[in-house]
Amino acid sequence: MERTLNLQTVGKIGEEVLVEGWVAARRNMGKIVFIDLRDRSAVLQVVMVPSELDETSKELLTKLRPEFVLSIKGIINNRGAKQTNTDLPTGTVEVLAKSFEILAEAETLPYDLNDAELKTDTLLDYLPLNLRREDEKAIFKVQESLLDGFRAYMKQKDFTEFQCSKLVAGATEGGANFFTLDYFGYKAYLAQSPQFYKQMAVGVFERAFTVGQVYRAEEHDTNRHINEYTSLDFEMGFIHDHHDIMQMIEGAVRAMIGKVAENNTAELKTLQATLPEMPEQFPHMKLNEALQILHDEYGEDCLGEPDFEPHQEKLIGEYTKKTWNSDFLFVTHYPVAKRPMYTSEDEEDKGYTKSFDLLFRGQEMVTGGQRIHNYEKLKANITKWGLNPDDFEFYLIPFKYGMPPHGGIGMGLERVTMSLLGLNNIKQATFLPRDQVRIDLPLSKLQGEKKK
Amino acid sequence: MERTLNLQTVGKIGEEVLVEGWVAARRNMGKIVFIDLRDRSAVLQVVMVPSELDETSKELLTKLRPEFVLSIKGIINNRGAKQTNTDLPTGTVEVLAKSFEILAEAETLPYDLNDAELKTDTLLDYLPLNLRREDEKAIFKVQESLLDGFRAYMKQKDFTEFQCSKLVAGATEGGANFFTLDYFGYKAYLAQSPQFYKQMAVGVFERAFTVGQVYRAEEHDTNRHINEYTSLDFEMGFIHDHHDIMQMIEGAVRAMIGKVAENNTAELKTLQATLPEMPEQFPHMKLNEALQILHDEYGEDCLGEPDFEPHQEKLIGEYTKKTWNSDFLFVTHYPVAKRPMYTSEDEEDKGYTKSFDLLFRGQEMVTGGQRIHNYEKLKANITKWGLNPDDFEFYLIPFKYGMPPHGGIGMGLERVTMSLLGLNNIKQATFLPRDQVRIDLPLSKLQGEKKK
Repeated sequence: MERTLNLQTVGKIGEEVLVEGWVAARRNMGKIVFIDLRDRSAVLQVVMVPSELDETSKELLTKLRPEFVLSIKGIINNRGAKQTNTDLPTGTVEVLAKSFEILAEAETLPYDLNDAELKTDTLLDYLPLNLRREDEKAIFKVQESLLDGFRAYMKQKDFTEFQCSKLVAGATEGGANFFTLDYFGYKAYLAQSPQFYKQMAVGVFERAFTVGQVYRAEEHDTNRHINEYTSLDFEMGFIHDHHDIMQMIEGAVRAMIGKVAENNTAELKTLQATLPEMPEQFPHMKLNEALQILHDEYGEDCLGEPDFEPHQEKLIGEYTKKTWNSDFLFVTHYPVAKRPMYTSEDEEDKGYTKSFDLLFRGQEMVTGGQRIHNYEKLKANITKWGLNPDDFEFYLIPFKYGMPPHGGIGMGLERVTMSLLGLNNIKQATFLPRDQVRIDLPLSKLQGEKKK
Repeated sequence: MERTLNLQTVGKIGEEVLVEGWVAARRNMGKIVFIDLRDRSAVLQVVMVPSELDETSKELLTKLRPEFVLSIKGIINNRGAKQTNTDLPTGTVEVLAKSFEILAEAETLPYDLNDAELKTDTLLDYLPLNLRREDEKAIFKVQESLLDGFRAYMKQKDFTEFQCSKLVAGATEGGANFFTLDYFGYKAYLAQSPQFYKQMAVGVFERAFTVGQVYRAEEHDTNRHINEYTSLDFEMGFIHDHHDIMQMIEGAVRAMIGKVAENNTAELKTLQATLPEMPEQFPHMKLNEALQILHDEYGEDCLGEPDFEPHQEKLIGEYTKKTWNSDFLFVTHYPVAKRPMYTSEDEEDKGYTKSFDLLFRGQEMVTGGQRIHNYEKLKANITKWGLNPDDFEFYLIPFKYGMPPHGGIGMGLERVTMSLLGLNNIKQATFLPRDQVRIDLPLSKLQGEKKK
């Protein structure tokens, strides 16, 4: 018999079906046992009455525990108006089991899956089990939609997706915080971003995007940083200025949120999350204008600062919400000194860049801007930043042989997921979080050794 | 004026347009200069007649060289039947330039882009430039379609895409050839595959897939191996046996080829590639049956061997083509000793596994099979393979708490691209190839140091 998914049982009253899944819960009501059977589509109530079961199944009945994997044959019955569970999409039906098979047993759970509070080290230790919780799983269904929305929009706008290496030969972007690798006896590094390669891809495809893991060997331990994350990156050629990039990422963000709205009603409900306010156009202001507002409205002593403090990001987010009913705000014109060496200066606003951050609910979500496309200017800027152009030989090739005005963005998928769903910690939005002390299990435990 | 893409000029005879792109070629015909302008959509002929140009442009005309980036205003003219270039999608029109602007200059090319032969070290050194060639770019447009086809099929079949970490704490799968990393003073490794994590994802989503880079620190230098590649992986629960997996990957492969057929007619023509023969069902046979055929038909001394030699893979590919007019062949039942410790043994064919390779044109393209889902059996197998179950604590969690029968596949995107397009070397199918001696540029050169 072909398997019927739990969600497909609705409306098949009276039919005999084969359903398969995990025991999410088991309730003994005297002789009758109720099973909540979880599969990828939904949770379904299965009624186990000994007198209805074949002999083998009857004997197995007492064995069942949460997370046992079952294959059940039975009849779909109507639950009747009084017994309907409106919280479940399958709440109008139940399956009366005729026989079942145990596909896999489960040991007694280390904690109650339905009852678990916030993630702790123990919950991270048990991540493969913990992710089975409805709310945990929901986070990654939403995350998948965000990525789908991004990809679909990029393709619609004629961007080509390419596969970007995570290995680089020199930690040359000028920053610290690279992970170092033994590469056939040479030193290599894990890439902090696909920046150089996506710019190179502009020379090939004009419009290119890539999705993949990037690495920051940063020793901070905040609720919004993690050492490996998924970066969504695009770069486009033949732009006029950074406003073209802002328009493109605004469209992409709308598509991402749109995909969640389309696919994830149930998940949003589970997670008690609300979709953001998006006015017809996202508001934008220069950094100095934002600092002026912080000064005037909130008494912040911040005029002339090169960036926000985290609490100021929150404040300007509140101001944006209050003033324009928007959860999004573009902040442009960060000072030249605060941006990477490839960032375009605004010729009409010297000392400031044609770059931007997109804040979402008072937190940086996207960084982007126009890049320098002129070969001589870029080389000069590398020198000005105290770096050696010889170290950038490969990166400079496309510029040496003709690069159009271009720009792009980078956006952390886990960060967006976290902000959208109002999670407390970015690790909750990371399928396999890697932090300073843990890769799956605590490093000290795994390696039975002390840190050097 | 809004930019018109080259491909959009067709049918807009008489209109004034702005076109932008790279000088793909420049031909001087006395005073008239013909420019082949390349943008992401197509190549377009632009006619530069000094008397038609404004003064500034007239002066710039002698400066133009290949790979200059131009922004051109002009009028679209019909080329007339005799002048039509049937090789170009824009071959019926040309643009008579009225003015142009140089967006970026280009140095004299190190070689003729249109004329370049096979990849050499020099061409790899100039990869950002080399990729601009029509045939190089075409490879990655086809690759993108292969991936699109895979993703679309997976989603249609209810698989969830998840983001998989590339960092693992132990080189525990039993193999060698891991890259070692300094992770906050601890040793970590680059993952060889997402195997353990996608199995864990079966416990969460039942059906899951992931696309990402994987690493092999192998010191071989063949035309079909590379040290970082893009792995397409899926894993699905509640299967009967490996035939369910074979059916799923066959569907995915058809979708991948279908997407190329749909999107890449021009690229296939450029690359002189033909799509594979796919009979209604891909043929399949056990390894021992294939070895028997090799023995009987080709006189190979291979009976009882645990795998094919590369030349035997080619021979069995020829046999498959000849016998079933198929470019694909499933080979099943590799010996237990030749497969990883998580592979299911066939209870009805002891000593052999419920695993398979999918050969494509005489080359391994996919490896897959059913896994062991029983906790005790898996633990016992780990021990039998000479490994320590304690090292697999995190991996074993889902099995300890109920895992359905499941299986899946892994497939190298660059390998598939190479075979489909008949390329000589997998580096040609890799956007940023990493081999033993090179990350972008030769490592010895970059690091100015000798290998330890």
